[in-house]
Amino acid sequence: AFRTAFLELHHWEQAQFFLSLNRSERLALYRILTANEVGNFFDDIDDDNQQMPEFLAEMKSDFAAKVLTEMYTDNAVDILEHLDKPAINRLLTQMPRQSALNMRSLLHYDDQTAGAIMTTEFIAIAANQTLASAMYALREKAADAELIYYVYVMDTENRLVGIISLRDLIVNNQETMVYEIMNERVISVQVTDDQESVAQTIRDYGFFAVPVTDDSNRLLGIITVDDIIDVIDDEAASDYSGLAGVDVEDTTENPVKAAVKRLPWLITLLFLGMSTASLINHYESLVSEASVLAVFISLITGTAGNAGTQSLAVAVRRLAFPEQERTFLRSLLTELITGLLTGIVTGLTITLVVGFWKHSFTLGFVIGLAMCCAIIVANLAGSFIPGLMARLGFDPAVASGPFISTLSDLTSVLIYFSIAQYFITSFVGQ
Amino acid sequence: AFRTAFLELHHWEQAQFFLSLNRSERLALYRILTANEVGNFFDDIDDDNQQMPEFLAEMKSDFAAKVLTEMYTDNAVDILEHLDKPAINRLLTQMPRQSALNMRSLLHYDDQTAGAIMTTEFIAIAANQTLASAMYALREKAADAELIYYVYVMDTENRLVGIISLRDLIVNNQETMVYEIMNERVISVQVTDDQESVAQTIRDYGFFAVPVTDDSNRLLGIITVDDIIDVIDDEAASDYSGLAGVDVEDTTENPVKAAVKRLPWLITLLFLGMSTASLINHYESLVSEASVLAVFISLITGTAGNAGTQSLAVAVRRLAFPEQERTFLRSLLTELITGLLTGIVTGLTITLVVGFWKHSFTLGFVIGLAMCCAIIVANLAGSFIPGLMARLGFDPAVASGPFISTLSDLTSVLIYFSIAQYFITSFVGQ
Ligand SMILES: [Mg+2]
Ligand SMILES: [Mg+2]
Ligand SMILES: [Mg+2]
Ligand SMILES: [Mg+2]
Ligand SMILES: [Mg+2]
Ligand SMILES: [Mg+2]
Ligand SMILES: [Mg+2]
Ligand SMILES: [Mg+2]
Ligand SMILES: [Mg+2]
Ligand SMILES: [Mg+2]
Ligand SMILES: [Mg+2]
Ligand SMILES: [Mg+2]
Ligand SMILES: [Mg+2]
Repeated sequence: AFRTAFLELHHWEQAQFFLSLNRSERLALYRILTANEVGNFFDDIDDDNQQMPEFLAEMKSDFAAKVLTEMYTDNAVDILEHLDKPAINRLLTQMPRQSALNMRSLLHYDDQTAGAIMTTEFIAIAANQTLASAMYALREKAADAELIYYVYVMDTENRLVGIISLRDLIVNNQETMVYEIMNERVISVQVTDDQESVAQTIRDYGFFAVPVTDDSNRLLGIITVDDIIDVIDDEAASDYSGLAGVDVEDTTENPVKAAVKRLPWLITLLFLGMSTASLINHYESLVSEASVLAVFISLITGTAGNAGTQSLAVAVRRLAFPEQERTFLRSLLTELITGLLTGIVTGLTITLVVGFWKHSFTLGFVIGLAMCCAIIVANLAGSFIPGLMARLGFDPAVASGPFISTLSDLTSVLIYFSIAQYFITSFVGQ
Repeated sequence: AFRTAFLELHHWEQAQFFLSLNRSERLALYRILTANEVGNFFDDIDDDNQQMPEFLAEMKSDFAAKVLTEMYTDNAVDILEHLDKPAINRLLTQMPRQSALNMRSLLHYDDQTAGAIMTTEFIAIAANQTLASAMYALREKAADAELIYYVYVMDTENRLVGIISLRDLIVNNQETMVYEIMNERVISVQVTDDQESVAQTIRDYGFFAVPVTDDSNRLLGIITVDDIIDVIDDEAASDYSGLAGVDVEDTTENPVKAAVKRLPWLITLLFLGMSTASLINHYESLVSEASVLAVFISLITGTAGNAGTQSLAVAVRRLAFPEQERTFLRSLLTELITGLLTGIVTGLTITLVVGFWKHSFTLGFVIGLAMCCAIIVANLAGSFIPGLMARLGFDPAVASGPFISTLSDLTSVLIYFSIAQYFITSFVGQ
C-alpha cells in the first residue's frame, strides 16, 4: 500500500519525500523499490545535492550500478563526478557495456561546457526510410529517450544530417520518406561550447532541446531545456554573487562557515580602504585647519560609490547581451556623459543644500564640484573595469559592487581633498 | 528566389533579419509574404520589443489582424496590450470570432500572473475514447497547437481531469481507452498565481508546459517553458537591478535617458547621506580636537557597507528559496553571529594595522572596536530589511545595495564617534 501510494507521486515529489528521510528509512525504501523506480526519482534530485554520493554508498553496489544505469546519463555522470576513481570503476564495471561507455565518454568533458550538460538518450533514425518505419523505431526507443519531441537523422557515419519534429512525423502521410520532410538546416552546438552560449541558442530559437556535435558533425548527445534552466539559474546566481561580493549559492546555516566565506573579500577590501585612509592622513593638516571638511567625506564617497555601482551593473549587463553591439570606447563615452549629467545634477543639489546649511556657497561649490568629479570618475571605473575584464577573458560579472565602492572611496577622497586644498583660502575663516 | 531563401531560415533568424530592415524594406517584405508567414516569425520577436505596435500600424489593417490571428495568442496579446482601446477593437473585429474571444480573455489578466503568460493553443480531448481516436484528434489539431507533447483530458464541463503525454499515446496499444492510462494527478497552476511560482513549478517538475486552471478547475490555457525562461530572465534581471539600485533591463544608449533613470535613487540616497553629514557635523569639535579621527571615517563606513551588502544579498537569496525554511528570527541570529565573527576578525586586523602605523594601540583599539560594531549592525540591517519587506508583502529583491551602504554609513559614523568620544582622553595628546 505504501509502495503504491509512493509510486503514484510525481518523480519530483518522490524525490522530495526521499530527501526528508533518515538513513534507516532510506534503506527500507531501497528494499521495496526496483532500481528503475529509484533511478526515476534520482533523476529529479537537484544536481547540486551534496548527499548523492552518500546515497549511492549506502546501497548494495550492484543495486547502485543499476540505479545509475536507469538514470539519464547526464544525471548519473553528475553523481559519478563526485566519487573517487576506484569507486567510479567499480560501478561502471557492473553496468551494461553501452551504459558504461556512455558514462565514461561524458566524464571527460570540462565543466560548464556543452559536453558537461548533454545526455546520450536521444532518438536517431536514418534518412532513407518511410515515416511509418521511423514511427516504428520511435515507439521502440521512446521509453528510454529523455525527449521524444525531436528525432535526429544520421547518415551511416553518425553525422547529423537532419531533424524531424514528432509533430511532422505524425501529421504527414506515413508513406513519405524521411529525407523528403526532414529539416536539413539543423541548429546544433559544439561539444566544447560554453554552457552560456548553449543557453542563448535554446532561448533564442525557443527549442526544447538542441543536438550536440563534435567538429566532424557527429551527433554526441542532446541538451534539454530543463538542464538549460539550471544553467540560467546558476549564471544568474553567480552574477548576483559577483555584484554583492559573496557567493549566495552557498547557503550554509553555519555562521562560522558563512564568516569564513565572506572574510576574504572583506579583508582584501580593508587593505584597499587603508590606501584611502593613508590618503586622508596625508591631508590631515588640511582637516585640522578646516574640520568642516570631515563632515562631507562620507557623503562624497558614498554618493560616488552609489553611482559607480549603478554604472557597474549596467556595464556587466550590456556585456552579457552583446546583441546591443557597440565598441568599448563608445560605451565609455556614453557612461562619461551619463556621469557628467548625474554629476552636475547631484553636484548642484548638494551645492545648494550645503550653501544654505553652512551659509557658504563657496564651501557648497567645493563639495558640489568634488561630488560631480567623483561621480564621473566612479561611473567611468564602473564601466571600464568590467569591459577590461571581458577583454582579458574573465567573466565581467565577477566585478563586485563592494570593490567598485571601495575603489571609488579612494578616488573620491583624492578628488575631494585636491579641490578643497585649492579653494581652502576662500572658505576657511568665514 | 529571395522569398524561398528567406523562408528556409528558422523563424528566429527570420525575425532577426526582419528587425534589421528599414520601413520601406519591411513594407516590401509584407507584400511578398502571407500573414501566416509573417505571424510565424513575429512569434519569435522578443516580447519586450518596443517597435511591435509600429510594425502592426504600418500594415494594412486586415493584414495586421490576420498576422495576429496566426500568432500564438499569448504573443499577439503582448502586442495588443501596447495599443489603445480603439486600435485593439478595430483589430479584434477583423478576426475570426474565436480568436478575438481568446485574445479578449487574455487581455484581462494582471501583469506577472499566470494568466498574463499563458496561451490558448493547447490540445484537449475527452476521457471516454480510444487512444486511436485521440491520436486522430491530435493530428487534426497539431498544426495549430503550440506544444503537442501534452494532451489534456477534459470532462464535459471543460474541467481538467487528466493528462497524457504524447509518449504514452504512441507507445500504448491504440485500443486502450484514454481514461485507463491518463494521469489523474495533474499538476496545474491557478490563473491568478504569480509568474515566479509558475516558474518554480516548471523548474521543479521538469515540465515543458503546465496547464492553467480557474478555481473551478476549468482549463484556461497552458504556459510553455520558453515563456518561463523569459520569466526567469526577467526576475534575475530585476533582482540584479534591485541590488545595484538601477534598472539594468532598460539598456538605452541615450545618456540623458540613462541619467534620468539613475538620478532618483542617487538624489534620494544623497539626502539619506546628508543625515550622516549632519551627524559628523555634530561631532565637529571632536574632529578638530583629534583630526586623526577623520582619517578612518571612510575605512569604517566602507567596510561596514561591504559587509552589509554581502549580508543583504544572502538574505534576499534565502527569501527567494524558501525551501531552506527557517524563521526570520533564526536568520537574524545566524547573521548576528556571522557579523560578530567577521567583525572580530576584521576589527582585530585593523587594530593591529592602525596600532603599528600610528604607534597607538589605543587608537587602533578604538578603530577596531568601532569597525566591529559597525559591521555587526550593517549585517543585521542587511538581513533584517529584506525580511521585513517580505513580511510586508514587498519583493525583498528591491532592497538595494546602495541603500544598505548609505544607511550603514549613518550607523557606522554614529558608532564610530560615540566610541571615539568615550575614549578620546586616552589617545589625544599621545
Ligand atoms: Mg532539475
Ligand atoms: Mg547548480
Ligand atoms: Mg541510462
Ligand atoms: Mg554534468
Ligand atoms: Mg538532463
Ligand atoms: Mg554570466
Ligand atoms: Mg561606501
Ligand atoms: Mg522567446
Ligand atoms: Mg521581458
Ligand atoms: Mg492564433
Ligand atoms: Mg502577456
Ligand atoms: Mg508562448
Ligand atoms: Mg524575485
